[in-house]
Amino acid sequence: MPSSTAALLFTSPDRPGIVAAISGFLFAKKCNIVALEQHSEDGMFFTRIEWEDAQNWKTPADFRADFQPISDKFSGKLDIHFFREPQKLGIFTSRESHTLLEILAKIETKEFEKVEIPFIISNFRDAESIARRHKIPFFHTPTTKNFEKTQLEIIKKFNPDILALARYMKILSPEFLREFRRPIINIHHSFLPSFVGAKPYEMAYERGVKLIGATAHFATPELDQGPIIEQGVTPIRSGYSVDFIKKIGRDTEKRVFAAALKKILEHKVIIHKNRTVVFE
Amino acid sequence: MPSSTAALLFTSPDRPGIVAAISGFLFAKKCNIVALEQHSEDGMFFTRIEWEDAQNWKTPADFRADFQPISDKFSGKLDIHFFREPQKLGIFTSRESHTLLEILAKIETKEFEKVEIPFIISNFRDAESIARRHKIPFFHTPTTKNFEKTQLEIIKKFNPDILALARYMKILSPEFLREFRRPIINIHHSFLPSFVGAKPYEMAYERGVKLIGATAHFATPELDQGPIIEQGVTPIRSGYSVDFIKKIGRDTEKRVFAAALKKILEHKVIIHKNRTVVFE
Amino acid sequence: MPSSTAALLFTSPDRPGIVAAISGFLFAKKCNIVALEQHSEDGMFFTRIEWEDAQNWKTPADFRADFQPISDKFSGKLDIHFFREPQKLGIFTSRESHTLLEILAKIETKEFEKVEIPFIISNFRDAESIARRHKIPFFHTPTTKNFEKTQLEIIKKFNPDILALARYMKILSPEFLREFRRPIINIHHSFLPSFVGAKPYEMAYERGVKLIGATAHFATPELDQGPIIEQGVTPIRSGYSVDFIKKIGRDTEKRVFAAALKKILEHKVIIHKNRTVVFE
Amino acid sequence: MPSSTAALLFTSPDRPGIVAAISGFLFAKKCNIVALEQHSEDGMFFTRIEWEDAQNWKTPADFRADFQPISDKFSGKLDIHFFREPQKLGIFTSRESHTLLEILAKIETKEFEKVEIPFIISNFRDAESIARRHKIPFFHTPTTKNFEKTQLEIIKKFNPDILALARYMKILSPEFLREFRRPIINIHHSFLPSFVGAKPYEMAYERGVKLIGATAHFATPELDQGPIIEQGVTPIRSGYSVDFIKKIGRDTEKRVFAAALKKILEHKVIIHKNRTVVFE
Repeated sequence: MPSSTAALLFTSPDRPGIVAAISGFLFAKKCNIVALEQHSEDGMFFTRIEWEDAQNWKTPADFRADFQPISDKFSGKLDIHFFREPQKLGIFTSRESHTLLEILAKIETKEFEKVEIPFIISNFRDAESIARRHKIPFFHTPTTKNFEKTQLEIIKKFNPDILALARYMKILSPEFLREFRRPIINIHHSFLPSFVGAKPYEMAYERGVKLIGATAHFATPELDQGPIIEQGVTPIRSGYSVDFIKKIGRDTEKRVFAAALKKILEHKVIIHKNRTVVFE
Repeated sequence: MPSSTAALLFTSPDRPGIVAAISGFLFAKKCNIVALEQHSEDGMFFTRIEWEDAQNWKTPADFRADFQPISDKFSGKLDIHFFREPQKLGIFTSRESHTLLEILAKIETKEFEKVEIPFIISNFRDAESIARRHKIPFFHTPTTKNFEKTQLEIIKKFNPDILALARYMKILSPEFLREFRRPIINIHHSFLPSFVGAKPYEMAYERGVKLIGATAHFATPELDQGPIIEQGVTPIRSGYSVDFIKKIGRDTEKRVFAAALKKILEHKVIIHKNRTVVFE
Repeated sequence: MPSSTAALLFTSPDRPGIVAAISGFLFAKKCNIVALEQHSEDGMFFTRIEWEDAQNWKTPADFRADFQPISDKFSGKLDIHFFREPQKLGIFTSRESHTLLEILAKIETKEFEKVEIPFIISNFRDAESIARRHKIPFFHTPTTKNFEKTQLEIIKKFNPDILALARYMKILSPEFLREFRRPIINIHHSFLPSFVGAKPYEMAYERGVKLIGATAHFATPELDQGPIIEQGVTPIRSGYSVDFIKKIGRDTEKRVFAAALKKILEHKVIIHKNRTVVFE
Repeated sequence: MPSSTAALLFTSPDRPGIVAAISGFLFAKKCNIVALEQHSEDGMFFTRIEWEDAQNWKTPADFRADFQPISDKFSGKLDIHFFREPQKLGIFTSRESHTLLEILAKIETKEFEKVEIPFIISNFRDAESIARRHKIPFFHTPTTKNFEKTQLEIIKKFNPDILALARYMKILSPEFLREFRRPIINIHHSFLPSFVGAKPYEMAYERGVKLIGATAHFATPELDQGPIIEQGVTPIRSGYSVDFIKKIGRDTEKRVFAAALKKILEHKVIIHKNRTVVFE
């Protein structure tokens, strides 16, 4: 996103006049809409509007105050982001580094813009050299007693906007999820809802599927049951061993994870019930 | 599209207020917008809006008259369609029948709704039995002198809204194109702009490409140069002969052609210069 | 496959020398191998070899007799097919006709070669007009008492090599499966093992997946648990209703089903345990 | 590839008995074939055979000597590789680092095994910090007089087995290509043969294609005309700017480039005329 733009996400019960109201509001403020997409399902209305900011508002809070009458009129919920503001993406990982390396590559090549990695937390030391190489604070939190407390203290200190679980192979406790109330994005190495749990490639091989997949979803207390953001698949051929499948699966995992994070960073995802509305 | 909805396509120079104006207009008529998508490129603004009709207008002409002030204000161009109206799709074909059979299957299974085939015209007799089986008037127009005149007379009689060139292997003359001023959709059996002309699979094999493609585009006087609507590809493996490539290419051809026709029938395509804006 | 070729499938415990033995055997008979592929997994060896026939054998039984010493030596299992022999594909269907129409189109365009449809059996009358149009015997077997007995009598009379369940929405009884011991190919409208059963698109929508799929598999007594032959997926976007998903899903279903049937007709599939080995 | 295996590629005029001869040879040496694939086109026979080495030969030269009678008998050309031997991949790059970072990630995660990067050469300094981070010798060779001479001296010193042109935006001179006679793999950011040259994304946008592509091919004296190893595409939607297309194109580029390099490193590619035979 160009840093001169802003985007709002708006969710409300569906009824005539919402687009007219929001586009009228932005027009009155002399904002030029550069992208508008809306969806209606399940009696609800979802829209994302992106415009050239024109510096009308100093902070998101100012915008929110101005917009309040529309939110009230339609009983809607607003998310607002100015792309001139950097976003902080905290990373949790375990041993496998392909998704972590992909995120770092996306930042280095500016495909992820205005994104900072305040820390990498891991229950193993494998990623430490990568963190050091990129001069990112690394914290080793082995799964001893109270390790989540340590993690939450680090989070408190660095205050990330989003958490990315880059092949972090621990389940976050309900307490952790209650405490950190911002988006947590996980990548699961199967085409959910198939093959929940720790050994999806083994299960995929055993069942004899012809495509293996990866699923990026929001972490929720129930394992691998959160709202799905993005999915991808890769064909597998006869003769592939489980080990070979694991290797080629990594490409799908990192591609799907990066795509999901991009959608989150561009403020293109709304959660509704246990599903997501994703804008293009 | 449900037959209770209508869709407009609007193209104009880009400036603030267009969405506000159109959505305000529809709101004033108590229409509920069910889909809205907009794009801006090249200084131009393109939008497609679909709404529940609410029976406000008897004919597209009535809508057009009502909408005129907005068209004037923004110097825009309007396309309007009510999905309760059937659309007539005339077909030209030659010898290979896979794309023709695909269109007929899409109509039979109601994936294409409110679509009628008024005629099948061919320079060969291969498709005659198919036409008879489906009780569609069939006209054999061998490429003798003045055959396009005969074709234009048939067209005049049946008055199709759209022409589909279902593997019709003749080039339409500039005169023909000048005469029939509605959309003509062609399927070319390559990933354009590669391999223009009559032998694309042979050329693809010769060059050793690893994906073969198909391209649906609007027919224009210059061969295979018209605005592209849809493209697709299929991987090819070592050891495939040209004949085998031709066979597997047909699946891509019929899929791409059907997808492009669906976009046209749903009024989701705007031509701008030599490119298309395609809505989702 | 050119009708001048033959193909063998051979399965045995893996040990050195199998390829040498088979290729030596064919060379001694002056056969020219045109395709050879092998896989080893799970301690087993699987190969498919296709060659130019050279008219050495009058019948598959003659070949089998000649080949017996190799089968014995390696304790292997042989499947042999001469592509000059036509294959009979019996069809079961219910109400939706997209997969049936796809099979008929593939035969009409010669993408399926030397394939005959001896009958269409349905528990509904929807497909009757299609059958009549194509001059294929149609049998309406409503699900009254003993309807499977009627079906088995029809099968006995026409003796198909393969059964294709083209969106046949009944479960075949274990007795039926025991009786008809040739391949039965089913198409399930989900990406198995997700969404087993009658309402996969509704379940996919509810779970919020971002790709919908289809799976062609061998019918076995356990519902949707048979060996998988082919799978495919299509992306779905936010705003798609269940009805719309069903419509676009049909394209994946018919594509996947046709691809699986093609593999079966070309003798490129071996079942091992509950998985398949599929050759290219 | 497990480092216990070896692979041979064999090309010869097609005639009966080649597979029997090679598989017989390996069987006599007690080698267990783990993968065998063959293709015949254009009167030629191409095979790749991989086996468990069994330590029969100390060096590739020993194998070559043993195998000579078969090469002679069938007038064939042999390529032999033992996967216990490391391979050296020299890298040329310019300013954009996405393909370089992908290669380094593949090595770090062991998806590329036994691969060493002896040097990174660039006509710019952008990649220097990446090279330093990974402790790889970096050479800045600005395009002054005789810069290719400098490059060839570096190559001579480090003796790479393969050169990877990771978005190196200079054309290698015919002299350079004559001098370095090992494989040089280039990634071009279009679906060749469309959009040869320096501005493919601009050209793709202008033509209005609906898929953008990338092509990995062998560098030859004629720009973007070398034998193609791998291609991939990504859909683009209306409203995407050229800059946005460039960004999303990078994912295709790095994926295609890595896939092509993997095929080369696994000795799965034969060049024949201006085409490649690629094994699975």
